[in-house]
Amino acid sequence: VCEADVYLIKNGNKELFMESVDIVEPEESDSRYRLVSIFGEQKTIQGRITLMNLVNHIILFEKNTDVS
Amino acid sequence: VCEADVYLIKNGNKELFMESVDIVEPEESDSRYRLVSIFGEQKTIQGRITLMNLVNHIILFEKNTDVS
Repeated sequence: VCEADVYLIKNGNKELFMESVDIVEPEESDSRYRLVSIFGEQKTIQGRITLMNLVNHIILFEKNTDVS
Repeated sequence: VCEADVYLIKNGNKELFMESVDIVEPEESDSRYRLVSIFGEQKTIQGRITLMNLVNHIILFEKNTDVS
């Protein structure tokens, strides 16, 4: 199955946010996305998408904490 | 391989923009994304991501032509 792992880069650190993600859908604001895994779990992530590499099953989000 | 097909919704019409996309990466502006297929082709798409459904190999972009 072609799910991807979602990583969040925050203050320069890359952390695994959610595994086996199937659906990524923006909420009202484009800086929030609803994630749904292949197991039906749901989480919301805040940040902007910085890279998707589907063949390697990776989606990177970045949360910019420096925005004034 | 876990590539996806990218569709662009424009004026309510959904059209296939690029097949077998591996990499999606925002350009300087978040409303432009560089797409790279598994064959190494590159294209740039303008619009916002409205849905990714990785298990079904679909990424939807929407180009809002009503922005004033």
